[in-house]
Amino acid sequence: MSKQFVYLFSEGDEKWRELLGGKGANLAGMTKLGLPIPQGFTVSTEACTQYYNDGEAINDVIQAEIMENITKLEGITGKKFGDNENPLLVSVRSGARASMPGMMDTVLNLGLNDDVVKVIAEKSGNARWAYDCYRRFVQMYSDVVMEVGKDHFEELIKKMKVAKGNADMLDTELSADDFKELSEQFKAEYKAKLGSDFPADPKEQLMGAIKAVFRSWDNDRAKYYRRMHDIPASWGTAVNVQAMVFGNLGDTSGTGVAFTRDPATGEKKLYGEFLMNAQGEDVVAGIRTPQHIDQLKEVMPEAYNEFVAICDKLENHYKDMQDMEFTIEDKKLFMLQTRNGKRTAAAALKIACDLIDEGMKSEAEAVCMIDPKQLDHLLHPQFDATALKAANPVGKGIAASPGAACGQIAFSAETAAEWGKAGKDVILVRPETSPEDIEGMDVSKGILTSTGGKTSHAAVVARGMGTCCIVGCGDLKINEAAKTCVIGTTSFKEGDVISLDGTSGNIYGEAVKTVEATIGGDFDRIMKLADKYRRLKVRTNADTPKDAAKAIEFGAEGIGLTRTEHMFFESDRIAAIREMICSDTVEERQRALAKLEPMQQGDFEGIYEAMDGRPVTIRFLDPPLHEFLPTKEDDIANLAKTMGKTVEQIKEIITSLHEFNPMMGHRGCRLAVTYPEIAAMQTRAVIKAAIAVNKKGIKTIPEIMIPLISEAKELAYVKAIVVETADKLIKESGVDMKYLVGTMIEIPRAALTADEVAAEAEFFSFGTNDLTQMTFGFSRDDAGKFLEAYYNTGIYEFDPFAKIDTKGVGKLVEMACKLGRQTRPNIKLGICGEHGGDPSSVAFCHVVGLDYVSCSPFRVPIARLAAAQAAIEDGNVSNKG
Amino acid sequence: MSKQFVYLFSEGDEKWRELLGGKGANLAGMTKLGLPIPQGFTVSTEACTQYYNDGEAINDVIQAEIMENITKLEGITGKKFGDNENPLLVSVRSGARASMPGMMDTVLNLGLNDDVVKVIAEKSGNARWAYDCYRRFVQMYSDVVMEVGKDHFEELIKKMKVAKGNADMLDTELSADDFKELSEQFKAEYKAKLGSDFPADPKEQLMGAIKAVFRSWDNDRAKYYRRMHDIPASWGTAVNVQAMVFGNLGDTSGTGVAFTRDPATGEKKLYGEFLMNAQGEDVVAGIRTPQHIDQLKEVMPEAYNEFVAICDKLENHYKDMQDMEFTIEDKKLFMLQTRNGKRTAAAALKIACDLIDEGMKSEAEAVCMIDPKQLDHLLHPQFDATALKAANPVGKGIAASPGAACGQIAFSAETAAEWGKAGKDVILVRPETSPEDIEGMDVSKGILTSTGGKTSHAAVVARGMGTCCIVGCGDLKINEAAKTCVIGTTSFKEGDVISLDGTSGNIYGEAVKTVEATIGGDFDRIMKLADKYRRLKVRTNADTPKDAAKAIEFGAEGIGLTRTEHMFFESDRIAAIREMICSDTVEERQRALAKLEPMQQGDFEGIYEAMDGRPVTIRFLDPPLHEFLPTKEDDIANLAKTMGKTVEQIKEIITSLHEFNPMMGHRGCRLAVTYPEIAAMQTRAVIKAAIAVNKKGIKTIPEIMIPLISEAKELAYVKAIVVETADKLIKESGVDMKYLVGTMIEIPRAALTADEVAAEAEFFSFGTNDLTQMTFGFSRDDAGKFLEAYYNTGIYEFDPFAKIDTKGVGKLVEMACKLGRQTRPNIKLGICGEHGGDPSSVAFCHVVGLDYVSCSPFRVPIARLAAAQAAIEDGNVSNKG
Repeated sequence: MSKQFVYLFSEGDEKWRELLGGKGANLAGMTKLGLPIPQGFTVSTEACTQYYNDGEAINDVIQAEIMENITKLEGITGKKFGDNENPLLVSVRSGARASMPGMMDTVLNLGLNDDVVKVIAEKSGNARWAYDCYRRFVQMYSDVVMEVGKDHFEELIKKMKVAKGNADMLDTELSADDFKELSEQFKAEYKAKLGSDFPADPKEQLMGAIKAVFRSWDNDRAKYYRRMHDIPASWGTAVNVQAMVFGNLGDTSGTGVAFTRDPATGEKKLYGEFLMNAQGEDVVAGIRTPQHIDQLKEVMPEAYNEFVAICDKLENHYKDMQDMEFTIEDKKLFMLQTRNGKRTAAAALKIACDLIDEGMKSEAEAVCMIDPKQLDHLLHPQFDATALKAANPVGKGIAASPGAACGQIAFSAETAAEWGKAGKDVILVRPETSPEDIEGMDVSKGILTSTGGKTSHAAVVARGMGTCCIVGCGDLKINEAAKTCVIGTTSFKEGDVISLDGTSGNIYGEAVKTVEATIGGDFDRIMKLADKYRRLKVRTNADTPKDAAKAIEFGAEGIGLTRTEHMFFESDRIAAIREMICSDTVEERQRALAKLEPMQQGDFEGIYEAMDGRPVTIRFLDPPLHEFLPTKEDDIANLAKTMGKTVEQIKEIITSLHEFNPMMGHRGCRLAVTYPEIAAMQTRAVIKAAIAVNKKGIKTIPEIMIPLISEAKELAYVKAIVVETADKLIKESGVDMKYLVGTMIEIPRAALTADEVAAEAEFFSFGTNDLTQMTFGFSRDDAGKFLEAYYNTGIYEFDPFAKIDTKGVGKLVEMACKLGRQTRPNIKLGICGEHGGDPSSVAFCHVVGLDYVSCSPFRVPIARLAAAQAAIEDGNVSNKG
Repeated sequence: MSKQFVYLFSEGDEKWRELLGGKGANLAGMTKLGLPIPQGFTVSTEACTQYYNDGEAINDVIQAEIMENITKLEGITGKKFGDNENPLLVSVRSGARASMPGMMDTVLNLGLNDDVVKVIAEKSGNARWAYDCYRRFVQMYSDVVMEVGKDHFEELIKKMKVAKGNADMLDTELSADDFKELSEQFKAEYKAKLGSDFPADPKEQLMGAIKAVFRSWDNDRAKYYRRMHDIPASWGTAVNVQAMVFGNLGDTSGTGVAFTRDPATGEKKLYGEFLMNAQGEDVVAGIRTPQHIDQLKEVMPEAYNEFVAICDKLENHYKDMQDMEFTIEDKKLFMLQTRNGKRTAAAALKIACDLIDEGMKSEAEAVCMIDPKQLDHLLHPQFDATALKAANPVGKGIAASPGAACGQIAFSAETAAEWGKAGKDVILVRPETSPEDIEGMDVSKGILTSTGGKTSHAAVVARGMGTCCIVGCGDLKINEAAKTCVIGTTSFKEGDVISLDGTSGNIYGEAVKTVEATIGGDFDRIMKLADKYRRLKVRTNADTPKDAAKAIEFGAEGIGLTRTEHMFFESDRIAAIREMICSDTVEERQRALAKLEPMQQGDFEGIYEAMDGRPVTIRFLDPPLHEFLPTKEDDIANLAKTMGKTVEQIKEIITSLHEFNPMMGHRGCRLAVTYPEIAAMQTRAVIKAAIAVNKKGIKTIPEIMIPLISEAKELAYVKAIVVETADKLIKESGVDMKYLVGTMIEIPRAALTADEVAAEAEFFSFGTNDLTQMTFGFSRDDAGKFLEAYYNTGIYEFDPFAKIDTKGVGKLVEMACKLGRQTRPNIKLGICGEHGGDPSSVAFCHVVGLDYVSCSPFRVPIARLAAAQAAIEDGNVSNKG
């Protein structure tokens, strides 16, 4: 038998989401439940795949199957497509497996033409309604299916109102003849724009609409949405064709949308709105003000009671908060759609907890209900909703780090640092930030830059700090000399107050009230449940005791990455590191390193104390040295003076450190190979700090991590320096303490030869940022120039820096895990790239069997939840298997 | 039974080279042949490995085994170590599997001390000889074993001569007492330098010498030599301990070295020299002038005849030209060593051919006798040997491209181009070269730069052209404005004549006569034999008809890589490419591309015609666009004028094209994805050219190669443009022709997902230059800063850009071959990185089953020979297996 591509609602099953899409599956489900559903059929996602395989065409077999189902629908409804007596009208709606606002939504009233409209006008005795439906159909079809755009049509309506002497009259004040006239004008407009007559044949209309749904699966908005939400392009969308019911037949008809619980708070009460004498689009359009769903009780009690009963039934059936559309046609209630409703993070937590308490969900099921990414919003300050509504943005940039911030503009990191220490709320406004700005960034409430993208310095550092940040704001022009800026068309001077929304990217030229993050009991409860189920440990990336403490608050179980170089930028030590870099001899270098050692030791003691015995992974110096060198003339002069060198000599050193491809240059463990004394100094700082805190009773086991290894012997060489230095210190101290030496796996060759590397490494930590760069052969900093073209052409479906590329990068990770365990069965495996805080990547880490993930403090709860979901999913899979 | 670490010569076998080293195995072999060999034993390479495993110490077990063998040797010789009546003296020599000049060579007369010297003085009645031996031993031991350096000792000898009133007297004029006095002075010097007495215990002397040999396996010179000659560090060296015989006992004693054939020409005649009354080191020292070996016939006919007979025996036995050392002690001939002799490329070819004709070697064996790398010398002009001897270098740089060149200095590519066209011989002297200099480089006889390494632009391009080139010459200071330069201490002005030796890196401040490359009949004969055995096809990397023609002359069977961008730098087209880059709209870009199209088409026609039906692989535009942009102010101004833009606008474009890591930036197929019109233009040029030459009767099948693929969909996207454009043109032309579309595999992810990529690609060409960079995570341009440290620490044993890294890069290549063939069993597989011309990498390509290698024209013969050797070796392996 040949493959079936089209299914009547009564043939389908609510479990067939992959085949029928979410909307189609639920229509089938509701049909089975015996609810009042206008009947229809679903053209499956497999038909969509076939459409693309056939070069974007619906083949004859599928067309025939669609028409067979129209015939069946005619049988069910007793109406006929294009009939002169009892014509069938249908709606056509897209419906993917996951709800996707990027796609075509709905075409209503399909099946109308010049003849049919007359029939329904006559039959209903409501010519105004009939022609309103017709003009709406022509308008919608032209806009949604043929992409003519709706402005031309709105223009024609406006012209008619002007001609009738009142530009401000409501659509409801237009007469049957007006609508008839408009439908003629609309068809003429269609012909003018497209060069052919508006299709009168209902079959042609239907195929056009179905094709448009399939085509919309691959438009730019849909691609963008899929990338943001990890939806594969291969899924395709289904199309639902459903007999029309009319909410605009008069005052006993209406239409509405409702939620079974409050989507903002999660409170268990019916929430929604409706409009009498209207079609669905009118509710959305916002021209007339809808009524609250509770008022339906008074307007139409029977329909209301039936609806409430259905709501209970659906919630009990789907065991989740439902988001429903309904239409009342002449007092008769019809359900058009139900789905699990979208909700805020707070509501998601409350609903999950309530459903456990109501006995609707098991704990594991409840844990799986929450999108981990949503938690991000809860952990940062937000704008007060009312205050935000009243504010108008003056400009917009790229939302780089979530949260809300309000403070006074500072145009330099120095000013920000000074004001911050004085207790002011500061917004740092810069063309871009650099490592030297770190102190100023640290005290700022928010950061705004005119250049850079989501992976710029400002963005990455701000996310790590949990500070609200907007980058790449083209609306922002800074005059640093004058200490003024213009955002959009508004001018600001230093000290003026602005507000940033790091979630939307909006900038407000005024103080907007913010509310602190509040993490309630539901959050704690769900997190505790998550901890019960997850196998993966969750660590954090933290460079300071403050970050470490924050992460523990969020449930971190250790540090997976301390970047020692971040400490080097602070003003008291940058001088020493510069001296170290500009040294001519080993002795000079050691002198400079000796200055740094006590500072580093102090940093590590602080971190160990904050972590109170939890494991701490410390990565040795990683970036190319030129990153530390001064760029400003007076800084260069100062350095020259300190070093007893000429300005020219310092400049020569800076020039000599220039690299063609610094990312692939003299950095990471290569620094330790060429300057072993750096590794020795860092070892001393790590071990002496550990000895000191051990003496205070905190049992700490530092994990020394050597970055950028590409060959086992490279690790062996650096490890020998570490072990010799460390063992001597420990022996001298008389303290009984352990430490580990391991490596980042961030270069393809390290993964390919992981069996050899594991002979030297007590742990692997996957540095998937660099591993992604090297595996794809592109630099994050430069990829912006072509990635957009890659998304638009569909070559890449998602950002491999945000979500781990399982086919390439993931293959290397799996290979390294397998090879590493071959050599050292108990090797500790973790990840410390930014993927460690991405839910789908965390799931991958669970599947390949890592021991832990490490992410920025604010992502720790996300990782905990994602790890639990992966473990639960994994359990389900094995139960099924 | 425990492992044996030490073998008497009589226990060993000449086949045990891995265990005994080359020298030890041949001493065993000669012992078996019954030749007169001073007996002794070999401490095996496994003992060397054990020495390193034990932390650079000879463990007690091995020490005991050595002393047992001393006892056995005492039994054989009837002499005893440190004996007062008949003392045993020995020589200690290193001997690795392959001869390695980087290592410790020899310590003679070991076993002497204050007592023993008296005994032998008395017994021999030759006190002068005895004390000469003693002072030599102290000097050699101090220098070679204890690394004191020999200058101090030479100084003492000089002082003594001065004290005796004749600073110029010969060593032979010193008396027994003088030598006795010197040996005392030498021991005092030893103590002064090392703080302990010179060891009197022969056992201590012996262990010290053996340790020194083991240690020398890992000194910097040895590491460097191994890297140059692909010798793994894991092999280790053996040590040979041999009873001394003395060539310095008087006028009936002597010592010498000889070859069974002339190592310079290969002519079959005894070749060598000897010194009477001397030890081996005197022959090398060059203080006395040795006699030609033929003269030995007159001096000592019996010894001579015996020696000639032994030579014949050895050559017949080893079936190769032998290089031997011998000593005559009081008329008795002793053989100290034999080995296959080193020879020039010309001699290697002649000997191989002669040995076939003499029935000593099969054809396959003869093919395997020649080091493919040696052929390089044959293919380039060389200095006349006599002229070279008379010339003195004024400076030295890095030898980047072999050959010899002599011409007038030009300080700019423009001047070089102009003079070259005028028929002058030009040497281009630049700080460094850039793509814009291509024309000037092309006409120059030689290229000299002050900066850059072996992989700099100048080096890579010169090697491709077969032009002699020296780079990174620190001795060279150029004053471009004054058009003068200083090399070392000599000043030159533009137009002055210098000579470059691209093999040694020497620069001569005068005209040195060069002789053209002469490739004789032996070369042809061996090449034809190689072609008979090899399975791999050999193609060439060629960008011009001239290169292509040269490569065919050298036996290329097709083009594996035409870099289309190299054509873009020529003066008539660089303007158009710049216009293309600076275009704001697709239309502007297409206009600029339309100018380039006929030029590219013309280039391709020329290449197709030169290749006369052989396959031609054309790679689409690869480098980042900013490489084409002007840097000089007037070029920028010209471009602005042509484009109707301001200078500022052009500068802005240049700035906007800046990349942080250009190697991983917007280049390769990424250009085709963002600007599909470039790929379309290049397709038109490739296909129209093919149609044109097909019409002339040359059946050409162009292979279009898309670079820098990281994902199958990326290739699919570009391929669609190519196929659509090509098929249309072919259809229109009515010509029946084919073309292929394939890809470079040069990004790790392409190799990891090669099964998917192969669905789109009709061929893979491994771009192992970039693949090596990405797999190791370092940029060739920047690696110079740390690679030296990597070689010195032994982390890397060889340059992965010269010899393919089989563990990492090779693993990806193998994986890609396997995955690619899974999807497309008949996929064509080749390599076009520089590894394609490296013999050991060619062997790897054979083993993983590639179809062809592609290399620069001058490397084609090398690749042909290497491919044959790999195939023959492969055959042997299967015969054995």
